[in-house]
Amino acid sequence: MRVLGIDPGTLRMGVGAVDADRDSLSLVYSCVISTRRADSLPERLHQLLARLLDLMQDWNPVVVAIESPFVARNVRSALAVGQAQGVAMIAAAHHRIPVYSYSPREVKRAVADHGGSSKEQVQNMVGVLLGLPHELKLSTDEADALAVAICHITAVRVDELTVRENAEGS
Amino acid sequence: MRVLGIDPGTLRMGVGAVDADRDSLSLVYSCVISTRRADSLPERLHQLLARLLDLMQDWNPVVVAIESPFVARNVRSALAVGQAQGVAMIAAAHHRIPVYSYSPREVKRAVADHGGSSKEQVQNMVGVLLGLPHELKLSTDEADALAVAICHITAVRVDELTVRENAEGS
Repeated sequence: MRVLGIDPGTLRMGVGAVDADRDSLSLVYSCVISTRRADSLPERLHQLLARLLDLMQDWNPVVVAIESPFVARNVRSALAVGQAQGVAMIAAAHHRIPVYSYSPREVKRAVADHGGSSKEQVQNMVGVLLGLPHELKLSTDEADALAVAICHITAVRVDELTVRENAEGS
Repeated sequence: MRVLGIDPGTLRMGVGAVDADRDSLSLVYSCVISTRRADSLPERLHQLLARLLDLMQDWNPVVVAIESPFVARNVRSALAVGQAQGVAMIAAAHHRIPVYSYSPREVKRAVADHGGSSKEQVQNMVGVLLGLPHELKLSTDEADALAVAICHITAVRVDELTVRENAEGS
């Protein structure tokens, strides 16, 4: 199962693809799509959509997982996250890839055991979970995107386990 | 000058085009793009984008004006408005049409003299300003979209007036 995780932002969008088989995870690809502050917001969203459409075409994930906050600093930042999420959702819908959303707390809990972990802890744990060499340093946006992908994989595995246990129990 | 106003929503998106010459306004077109609650949010955003791309192509506005709140009921509603705004901005950027944003208060003030007007007052005043027959009843989403277009036209006229007065005064 290949999952594309997205950390949505209108200036920097983290993107990371993870492959999962029965009990291992591997890094497929990660990047940060940056846009220029000098460009208008509509231009930036348009550029982000074009890049995401290409990336989904190239890497062909079966699921897109997006980080979605339940709290925000202010309306302005919530609108910006919504705009960036919208772009990611449109790109996924264009390629008919299902989309799942996870809160930052769920994402952190999936990779670092508790929901209050720091950016650095998430960065380190993503590296460990994907078996990356110690010297390879992910940017925080890439690490966040990969963490969302891992969060979805964990959620699916827990579901499968529950189904199996229920089947065995019945 | 033809302005396309947009009242952004992920379930109902109000759209209205207004033509303005030196001192008159006229209704060109208005509609509500509805999406089905049964469809996933990514599917709905994708459908909204396709419809907006077509409408902008057909009606060929020189400006797109979008309503943008500064306050929101909660993060969930701010994210939804952001998602819908993102769609409208991408469609405009695709057609290289500049986008302007106005707060609900600015929009209400432009059509109904004060920022605290009710939905019905906006509906009525938009009808009066566009010289619509009394029996023609706009939906609130269409009236809001047309009000955003009128708000942009008013802002441009005030700017022009200021430029003219400054030129005459110098």
